[in-house]
Amino acid sequence: MERYMIIVAGGSGKRMGSDVPKQFLPINGKPILMRTIERIKQYDNNMSIIIVLPEDHIPYWQLLCREYNFDVPCIIAHGGKERFYSVKNALTHVPEECWVGVHDGVRPFVSNETLDKLFEASETNYAVIPAIAPYESIRMDTGDSNSIIDRNIVKLIQTPQIFHSSLLKKAYSTDYKTMFTDDASVVEQVMGNKIKLVEGNRENIKITTTFDLMMAEVIYENYKF
Amino acid sequence: MERYMIIVAGGSGKRMGSDVPKQFLPINGKPILMRTIERIKQYDNNMSIIIVLPEDHIPYWQLLCREYNFDVPCIIAHGGKERFYSVKNALTHVPEECWVGVHDGVRPFVSNETLDKLFEASETNYAVIPAIAPYESIRMDTGDSNSIIDRNIVKLIQTPQIFHSSLLKKAYSTDYKTMFTDDASVVEQVMGNKIKLVEGNRENIKITTTFDLMMAEVIYENYKF
Repeated sequence: MERYMIIVAGGSGKRMGSDVPKQFLPINGKPILMRTIERIKQYDNNMSIIIVLPEDHIPYWQLLCREYNFDVPCIIAHGGKERFYSVKNALTHVPEECWVGVHDGVRPFVSNETLDKLFEASETNYAVIPAIAPYESIRMDTGDSNSIIDRNIVKLIQTPQIFHSSLLKKAYSTDYKTMFTDDASVVEQVMGNKIKLVEGNRENIKITTTFDLMMAEVIYENYKF
Repeated sequence: MERYMIIVAGGSGKRMGSDVPKQFLPINGKPILMRTIERIKQYDNNMSIIIVLPEDHIPYWQLLCREYNFDVPCIIAHGGKERFYSVKNALTHVPEECWVGVHDGVRPFVSNETLDKLFEASETNYAVIPAIAPYESIRMDTGDSNSIIDRNIVKLIQTPQIFHSSLLKKAYSTDYKTMFTDDASVVEQVMGNKIKLVEGNRENIKITTTFDLMMAEVIYENYKF
């Protein structure tokens, strides 16, 4: 079955104290978003890429592509007010009966191994996502009080999250709810589907702060994926 | 009130694929454990340090101290089979009516700001611990099934964890249970005390894998605490 990857790059970069949206900041001289796209294409050059950008970032992205001679063919979809609407817009470019991944534009380090596990599991599961175990103790904090929970049952969720496209499209035909923090949560709550977890890779960080950006430089220099 | 810091360095390093226990691995040429101790002493040179080491690591630690001219006065306690027993042993060196922190030997980057918050909050709370919010979506995975939980109520717990010594000693007079993954969990479950959370710092990583060790080099080079 055909494979699509929706790469969501709609962030405003506010958390980074930078005027440049974070997906355009460079890792080793090249914008993060390009690194993320290249990582996916290195894994499977036949995968179709859809990037989701806020409408007013598109001219800048096109300028960057010219500047960096970045010629990976990408469908561009318009970002929405919430991530939910961004993915929904992107899904209009995805056919029924294919595999579709949804991936953060600022996660350039998903490994071949993680991708293999995702696509292998997708042969028998309609919704597969990568997860890693936390090394920290975990607490549930309701504000008034907090209590420890067994960290063995807690998983930190990464992307890309892989779905059968018909399932994801159906799930996204619902109305937006604030509890939709990722695509698996939409599928789970709307369709009631079980979500299959596979082991992610620890370097597959979401670049959110300048601290992460610095880590990203090191990961880039030292790891082969 | 007097301040003690118990620094637990009992790890066997198995997760790192290294024969050297991880607390002795170097960051910028100096063993992590020394960096962790120095960080605490830089913050408050009057704090009494107790390090907990497996008995058969002590000669090697003493050798390292001579080699690096490391002369920070430290009480050495013997590590137990579980972390619980290590802390319990260390507490025999701590007087009643003081503040006692318990800290991971492989967390060399707790900031002055985090330490300030901890000790400030300890003036009105008998159990104070640092916590940060996860950036990832979070799932609870029981093996058979998994489901999303609101990440806003999930906190990743760091160290040092600060307690009134009488409270911590009483808590540790109980029997070991596997659910004791940190000191706050012992205090909470044995004494029923509320645990006060303060904001930790993101660089205060627990060095657990070679990936973390590499990150640690970068943090060391780029951050001042």
